[in-house]
Formats: sequence, structure tokens, C-alpha cells
Amino acid sequence: MELLTINNVWMMICTALVFFMHTGFAFLEIGLTRQKNTLNILFKNILIITIGLLLYCLVGFNLMYPGEFNGFIGFAGFGLEAPLTAEGALDLTYNEGYTYWTDFLFQGMFAATAATIVSGAVAERMKIGPFMIFTIIYVGLVYPIAGSWKWGGGFLDQLGFYDFAGSTLVHSVGGWAAVVAVFLLGPRIGKFKNGEPQAIPGHNIPLATAGVLILWLGWFGFNGGSVLSANPELTSLTLVTTCLAAAAGGVVAALFTFIKYKNLDLTMFLNGILGGLVGITAGADVMSPTSAIIIGAVAGILIVLAVSCVDALKLDDPVGAIAVHLICGIWGTLAVGIFSTNPEHNFLAQLIGVACYAVFCLVTSFIIIFTLKKVVGIRVSEKEELEGLDAHEHGMEAYPDFRSNDH
Amino acid sequence: MELLTINNVWMMICTALVFFMHTGFAFLEIGLTRQKNTLNILFKNILIITIGLLLYCLVGFNLMYPGEFNGFIGFAGFGLEAPLTAEGALDLTYNEGYTYWTDFLFQGMFAATAATIVSGAVAERMKIGPFMIFTIIYVGLVYPIAGSWKWGGGFLDQLGFYDFAGSTLVHSVGGWAAVVAVFLLGPRIGKFKNGEPQAIPGHNIPLATAGVLILWLGWFGFNGGSVLSANPELTSLTLVTTCLAAAAGGVVAALFTFIKYKNLDLTMFLNGILGGLVGITAGADVMSPTSAIIIGAVAGILIVLAVSCVDALKLDDPVGAIAVHLICGIWGTLAVGIFSTNPEHNFLAQLIGVACYAVFCLVTSFIIIFTLKKVVGIRVSEKEELEGLDAHEHGMEAYPDFRSNDH
Amino acid sequence: MELLTINNVWMMICTALVFFMHTGFAFLEIGLTRQKNTLNILFKNILIITIGLLLYCLVGFNLMYPGEFNGFIGFAGFGLEAPLTAEGALDLTYNEGYTYWTDFLFQGMFAATAATIVSGAVAERMKIGPFMIFTIIYVGLVYPIAGSWKWGGGFLDQLGFYDFAGSTLVHSVGGWAAVVAVFLLGPRIGKFKNGEPQAIPGHNIPLATAGVLILWLGWFGFNGGSVLSANPELTSLTLVTTCLAAAAGGVVAALFTFIKYKNLDLTMFLNGILGGLVGITAGADVMSPTSAIIIGAVAGILIVLAVSCVDALKLDDPVGAIAVHLICGIWGTLAVGIFSTNPEHNFLAQLIGVACYAVFCLVTSFIIIFTLKKVVGIRVSEKEELEGLDAHEHGMEAYPDFRSNDH
Repeated sequence: MELLTINNVWMMICTALVFFMHTGFAFLEIGLTRQKNTLNILFKNILIITIGLLLYCLVGFNLMYPGEFNGFIGFAGFGLEAPLTAEGALDLTYNEGYTYWTDFLFQGMFAATAATIVSGAVAERMKIGPFMIFTIIYVGLVYPIAGSWKWGGGFLDQLGFYDFAGSTLVHSVGGWAAVVAVFLLGPRIGKFKNGEPQAIPGHNIPLATAGVLILWLGWFGFNGGSVLSANPELTSLTLVTTCLAAAAGGVVAALFTFIKYKNLDLTMFLNGILGGLVGITAGADVMSPTSAIIIGAVAGILIVLAVSCVDALKLDDPVGAIAVHLICGIWGTLAVGIFSTNPEHNFLAQLIGVACYAVFCLVTSFIIIFTLKKVVGIRVSEKEELEGLDAHEHGMEAYPDFRSNDH
Repeated sequence: MELLTINNVWMMICTALVFFMHTGFAFLEIGLTRQKNTLNILFKNILIITIGLLLYCLVGFNLMYPGEFNGFIGFAGFGLEAPLTAEGALDLTYNEGYTYWTDFLFQGMFAATAATIVSGAVAERMKIGPFMIFTIIYVGLVYPIAGSWKWGGGFLDQLGFYDFAGSTLVHSVGGWAAVVAVFLLGPRIGKFKNGEPQAIPGHNIPLATAGVLILWLGWFGFNGGSVLSANPELTSLTLVTTCLAAAAGGVVAALFTFIKYKNLDLTMFLNGILGGLVGITAGADVMSPTSAIIIGAVAGILIVLAVSCVDALKLDDPVGAIAVHLICGIWGTLAVGIFSTNPEHNFLAQLIGVACYAVFCLVTSFIIIFTLKKVVGIRVSEKEELEGLDAHEHGMEAYPDFRSNDH
Repeated sequence: MELLTINNVWMMICTALVFFMHTGFAFLEIGLTRQKNTLNILFKNILIITIGLLLYCLVGFNLMYPGEFNGFIGFAGFGLEAPLTAEGALDLTYNEGYTYWTDFLFQGMFAATAATIVSGAVAERMKIGPFMIFTIIYVGLVYPIAGSWKWGGGFLDQLGFYDFAGSTLVHSVGGWAAVVAVFLLGPRIGKFKNGEPQAIPGHNIPLATAGVLILWLGWFGFNGGSVLSANPELTSLTLVTTCLAAAAGGVVAALFTFIKYKNLDLTMFLNGILGGLVGITAGADVMSPTSAIIIGAVAGILIVLAVSCVDALKLDDPVGAIAVHLICGIWGTLAVGIFSTNPEHNFLAQLIGVACYAVFCLVTSFIIIFTLKKVVGIRVSEKEELEGLDAHEHGMEAYPDFRSNDH
């Protein structure tokens, strides 16, 4: 009883921290985009967390953790059904690490994250209606089904694939959809001139910076809670590897940018931190501090290369979501096969896992977004894009008391 | 000993989270008002949390929890008096859920909240001196006396009235005073033209949004800590009902606004979330998830209706405090009488409770504010209101490096 | 095992809260300076937390806690070396309050703080390269060596010197270096006209205010975690004294400023809160609530006097770091000798401790910064200072979508 109580306290705190990540994502996404689209991004973020929780309650939790199932898809029924004792109290033998309620809420906070990743990538040009529909299907169905393959005990779990806290199950799942969405949407007006990518500076770097620090803080819960108990060895090791990878990712990305472009680029510094965090997420509990620093450092270099690569492919990802969540998510997942202290982990299983998620997410997100594009259209009008989505979709301004300098 | 330690850890974390709500209130209030009054609002918020804690130490704690008393008013003496063992150490048998010190601090963080609610409603036109005096009396005396009736074991507790975490004891207590203050102050210049309410847009919607997310996070502690221990069943159920009500409140308010006004209104979305949170607060530990969603959804509709109703009554409440804290606070308290899983809870007792607090708060806040109005005046001069309270009361600007666009 | 798990949970949460203080410092420092230097300050803050953690991993932890040593300087080797059991698992008997990993991370989060204090003082005119070098040496070597004298069990610990959570070991260590840096740098252009100090208003007071509230929140972990376990009596007493000192510091500083300058000065209110927090930090676990209020109140007065004193000395400290961290750090350390409930604490030992740190920090920081000044120069060019460090050092703007009003 004492141990359950402690474990559950830890898990509830981690739940709160993962919830707080949505503030981090919101700050990061608006900070790195233009002020004329701020309200629109905030609206989407608030929508994702609210509708995401409700959907996870309605179907997601029972799709992701269906109990005994065929390993590919299962569904334990609508709504929440707490296990009770004969006397009608909550059955506390459900798990030694948390109660049924905590389990639902912790996993529910994760679910919304995948859609938020997409939100950043499609910012400043996607219609909000189709984005909502995409979010509902992706968070409500795709994410939990994909999650069940590993965390629900499905076929990838049987295969020996390992993803501790979601480099693949959360970040790449969002990242693959971001690629598809960005490809189908096309770049923002003005992003490419004569084939050359143009910088479109974000309007509020202090909020973007705070967003990254809040995300880092939230990762204490994202990774720390993925231990699924307060086990002192594993939780504390996880926090150490998480923080060291974040630090290494940031420093290396900043340094590499400085060497490559002779510029002290704060945005790259921030994205390097996020890359390090995403990279360590698949194996934060099975890494030495040194491996964590290496994983973070490689993520820091990958971020810088991936951002130019995305540009070269004429994809327009305003916040760097593809580089951070997809590329570093893949890297982190594969890195488990290289650096894990657990001899059962192997590179092949990791590679198969990455490939399965790639196929499933690319296909499902393409079907959803392509259908939306053909049926209702996914892109706002040129006029609306130029004048800003805030004025057109929301009839409000984010900062009406300040004189703007829009571009 | 282990159990006390765990419980106490949980309660201290919840205390920290409730403290953090003051950051949320500050962001929300300044975000929804004009930049020329930003410093003034921040000054008031900082004042409330600091002076509120000192007053709660001096008199509030012992007024609210006087021990054995007549059920209406009691006072256990000035200052804090920690219970000691014979050896002079802190007596840890004080409560199994927390130490004496944690008890004081958790309750002290709650105390300041009631005044903060009023601060938002009177923003942009109330003199700061009279507001300070009101705060001192309301936080120092009215709130703790009112609180003693239920949480201190007073007559409403005897009567079977239930208010888990303060839909009435905190939110309505603030909300009633907000009604009185707004009524006695009158609307801001320009709020009503030819009897029609005019929108006065808030100057920093990103901060307002962050404020709501921080408040939601803080509610993990506000409601989760009101279990008064780390009981795994009750704390985790409470967090689930709290989050589901918040999500439902937001989604329904946004949807209802869209149907009613054909507008994707972020402010209403945010206020809907807050309404759901306030609504669930009275019974977060005695609700099923489904009931929580219903309570939140109803709160979401009430918010939209209440905001137009406040406008129709020619009351000017810049941040929607009356709709959020008073109307949803009443709804949440009555909802306990409808949805509670505890058969001892009944609608009549809830109604009596609501009525008692209505009378007490309306009378006391009217006496305080009306006296201040007659003796020293409560409203700033027209010139000061038009030019902004920051320049006149504080001699500073909130954002001196930006060109403003004041209105 | 249960007890270790609880204690470790508390310590991990405190670690997260101390980490979050870096967001608070970032907001405070940019809020109190001009927008043209915002990115530069953020870059420095992000650099400090990332490089600080890596350095603490590489050398700092083993310099600060070298085990058996001569009491002045010792080094247990590069990198982290977790103690293992015979079976190769983490040795959980390392400490009853936390694991080896938690120990490292909690202390690592502290380490970066000292450099952050300096960052605020040198804002708006110091070259970033030399600042980085200073940070690396000061965080990597000076701070941990100084820390070993007391917290590592060195000569000051043997002498009976007491510094619970770092009024001296963290805040003064940063504060002394701030004095040296500010002296060697000289004031910003325009700070003194005809010998009279000029106000250079900060550009974003809402963020500065949020910064202080976040710092206060972080102090729950900074002081609460310095108990080094979840001991219910000591942790909860510590949070109470911390919050009361903060509240008293703020209220008294605001009141004293009002009496002295007839102005409701939000910045002084905020600095008063920080002064109270720094002041209580040396003895938060050995104070009665009344003593805590007195310590905070005195800190509130000291802040106001120290700010004018720094001005009178023609030193330019844009964020008041010297007043807050140095003066209140000294006061808090000495106050342990006056108010401590532990009869073993005495004023003389406290005074000796303060003096030792003064000498060591003044000498080391002078050597580092003076050498940098002579070899590479520490001050940006006049043109760069006037046009802003963001444009020149980073080639970006913090808020490109807003029209600025620079001065």
C-alpha cells in the first residue's frame, strides 16, 4: 500500500508535467511563427489537448491497451471501466505502479502530443476545420492503434522492439504525419524564392525559448513517468540521461551551426535541445551517461543537417518539427540497438519497428489528409494567408495594442 | 511514518501547484485587458499573494480552523503555533496526511485566490489603495470566517453541505465580491455605447492562453491536494474528473460559441476550460468520469450564456470572472447534489450552502466596498483611466520598447 | 526501500523545480533589459544550463564532493561513477535520501545558477565569447571548489559554518563575480549622465514578473530539496519559512520604496521577493516563522538601499543582481548566526564563512575576467551596444513583427 501510494504520487506528478508540455509546445510554435497566425496556432493547441483527452477517454485508451488481442488491433470497449473490488471500491491490485485512473490520465496526456507535432509543421497555412478532423482521427484512432503494437503488448512487443517513452511511438508517429501534411499542403507563400529557401523569422523568441525550457521540464515526466513506477534507480537514471542528452544536443547543435554558418543561432540551440530529448526518449532507462551524451550530440548534428535537408526538398516546416521529432525520433530508436545496456535489445528489431511505424503512419496520414484535400481543401486562400489566419478564421488579433510590422 | 512522508510530499507538491496558479491568474488577467493597465494588474496580483500569505499567517489560519467553536465564528489566536511533542519536536500525529506546516501553507495558498478573482473583475479602473484595503479585509477576515463554516467544521459542515475543493468556498466567495465591486465601480469608459456592449480586446492572448494552461496545471494541486492525503484512489480519480471536466467545458464552450456566433473564439474556449474546472471543484472526488464530462459541458454552456447576461445587465467584467467563478461555482456546488456518488450528499444542503455564502459575501463585500467608495473613492479619474493606470499609479510602462496602438 | 523511494521522489521533483528556475532567471533578465538585447541574454541562459550540466558531469560533481579530502580542494576523477552492488545494480545504500543519480542531477542544477546570476549583471554590453569562457571556468571549477568547503565536508564545514541551501555557496558566489564583472565592464552607455544614474526601463515587465513567480516556485525545490530527504518536519517547515520570507521581503520593499520615493514600484516589489528568498536560503530549516518574516523584511529594506548604493558607486547592474544575490546572500548567512534555532550555529563562524567566500570569489573572478579583458576584450563595440547585441552577435531579432521604440 505504501509503495503503491508513492508510485502513484510519482506517476501523477509526471502526468502533470506531461500536461504542462502542451504549454511548451504552444509557446514554441507561436514563437517560431508570425504574429498574424498566433491565435490560430493557440486555438489548435488548446483544441488538441481538450479533444484529445475526451477521445482518449471515449476510445483511445481501450484501443491502445485492449488486453489480450491479436497483436495488430483490438478494442476493449467505449469509455472508461475502472476495475472494482467485490465491495465496489477501486481495485488497487490493478498495477503496483499506479491506479487505473492514473494510468488513463498519464497515457491520455501522451496521446495529444502526436497531433501537436503536426500542428507546428502545418502552421500558418492550413485550414482549421480539416486540421480538426485530422486530429480527431489521428489522435482517436491511428495513435492508439499504433501504440498498441508495442505498449499494448502487440506484435512489435513480441518481436523484441523497444521504445521506452516514445521516440517512435509518439514523436515519429507525429513526425511522419508532419511530412505528409507538409508535402500535401505545400510551402507558405514566400518561403521559396527562385528555389532558394527564405528565412521567415518567428515573432516571439522569448516565448519560443520558454517553450523549450518548459518542454525540457515536461520531459522529466514524459521519460521519468515512463518507468511506470517510482523505482528509484530507474527514474533517477532516466532523468540524468534525459538531461545530459538535452544539454549535449543543444551545445553540439549550437557549435555545429557556428562552425557551419558562423552564427550564434538561438533557434538551432533550442532545436538541438529538443532533438537530444527526442533522441534519448527511446532508451532513457537503458543508457549510461556517456551514451546519453553521445546520443544527444549526434541528435544535435542531425538537427542541423535535417533542417537544411528539409529545405532542400522544398518542404516548409516552420518550426522544424520533422527534424526534431521524426529524424531524431528515428535516430533515438535505432540508438537503442547500438547503446542499450540491455543485451536483449538489438538493432534489427529496432529497424523493423521504425519501418512498421513509417509505413503505417505514412499510409494512414496520407489517406486522411489527401481525402481532406480533395473533399474540402486543406489550404487557406492566398488572401487569408497573406493577411493572417487570426483575422480571417477567428476575427481577433493576438496583440491588438501593439503596432505590427507584418511580413 | 512512511505514509505520513508520502502524503506530506504530495501535499507539498500540491501547495506548490496552487502557488503557481497565481502566475496563471496574472497572465490571464493581463492578457485579457489592455497593455496600458498591465503593471497595475501585476502589482495587485503580487500584492495579493504576498500580503495574503502574511495575513493568513497572522489571523486567517486560526480564523478558518479555530478548532472547537460555535460554528459561525471562532479564533484560535494570532500567528502560528505548531503542536510540539514533549521533547519539543514537531508533533507528527497532528494529521496522517500532512504536517502542521504543510497544512498552513496549503490553506494559505488557497486564501489568496479569492481576492485574485476580484482583481480581474475590477481591472482597468479601480484605484489601487482601496483595492488593497479591500484585499486585506476580504482575505484576512471574510474568506477565513466563511471557510470555517464548512472546512473548519462549522454549521454548514454539520448540515451536510459538501464542497470538496471550493467551487463555493473559494470561487463563489471571490465571485460574489466581484459582482458587488463591478456594480459599485461601473463599467470602463467605452464599454457600453448607446447601451450596446463593445468588445475591448485583451492585449496579449498568448499570455492569457498560457495563463489558462497554468491554471489547469495548478488545479492538479488545487483539487488533488484537497483530498488532504495521497490516497491513491481518491487523488487519481480527482485528477481524472478535473481534467475531463476542463476538456469538456472548453470544447462545449467553443462549439456553442461557434453555433451561436459563427466564430472560433479562443477566449471563450479558454473561459470554458476554466468554467469546467470551477464546476468540477465542488465534487471532483465523488464523480464518475461521465458525470465530470456532463458537469464540464454544462459549465461550458453556462459560461457563454453568463457572459452575455453580464453584458445585458450592463456590468463590465473584463476577464469574465463572474461567469467563470461565480456562475460555474454555483453550478458545480449544486451539481454535487445531483451527481455525487456519495448518497449522503443532497441538493437541499447544497442550495442552503450556496445561499448562505451568497448572503454573507454580498453583504460583507458591499459594506467594505461601499464604505471605501464613500470615504476615499474607488475609481480612478477619467484622465487616468484613458491614459492608463500604469503611467499614473506606477510611473512606468509594461512594454516601453514597443510602439503601442492604444485604444 | 519505501522510505528511499519517497525521499528520492521528493528529491527528483525538487530537481525539476530547480531546473525550472532557469526559465525564471531568463524571463527576469530579459524582462528587465531592453528588447534589442533579448536574444543575447536568452542565448547565454540556455548556454549556462546546458554547458553547466555537462561540466558538472565532467568535473564539477567530483570536485564538489570529493569524499575524503584536505578540506580545501579535492577531485574524485572525471565523469560519473555510480556505486554498484556486487551484482552490478545501483547501490541503493549510497544515501537514504536519494540515489547517486538524483544526487548528481540535483547538485548539477544548482551549479548553473551561480553563472546565471552574473549573466544578469553583465547584460547588454558584454561580449558573448568571453562570457562563455568565464562561465566554463566559474561553473566548472570555482563554484564546485568553493562548494566543497562546506557541502563537500571541507574546512568551513569543520568550522561550524552553516549554509543550508546556498545564500553564500550559490548566491554570493554568483554575486561577488557580478561585482567584479560589472566593475571591469563599466556601465552601459547612457546609464550615468553627469554622474547621475538614469533609469533604463526593462522592456517586458510581464515576463519579469512571471520570472519572479517562477523563481519563487523553483525555490520550493531549491530550499525544500536542500533537506536532502522528504523528512516531513524539515521540508514543510522549510517551505513555510521560504514563502513567508519571500512575502515579507516583497511587501516591505514595496512599502519602503513607497515611503522613500512615493511610487508603487513593481520592480522593487519583485526584487524584494527575491531578496527575501535569497535571505532565508541559508537558514530556512532552522528558523521560526517569525524569524523568517524578520529576515525577509530586513532583506526587503536592504534591497532598496543596496540598489541606490550600487548606483552611487557608479556600478551598472541592470537587473539588481548584486543587491539581490550578494547583499541579501550575506545578510541571510549572517542571520543564521542571529536567529537559528540550532544553538551550535554562531555569528562568528558565519562571518568567517562569508569572508572566505568573498576573498576566493573576488580573487578568482577578477583573475578570470581581468585576463579576458586584457587578452580578448570583454565589451562589445559602441556601435554594437547602441544597435543591440541581437543584431550583431546573432543576426536576428527577438520580436521582428513588432515595431520597436528603441532607446
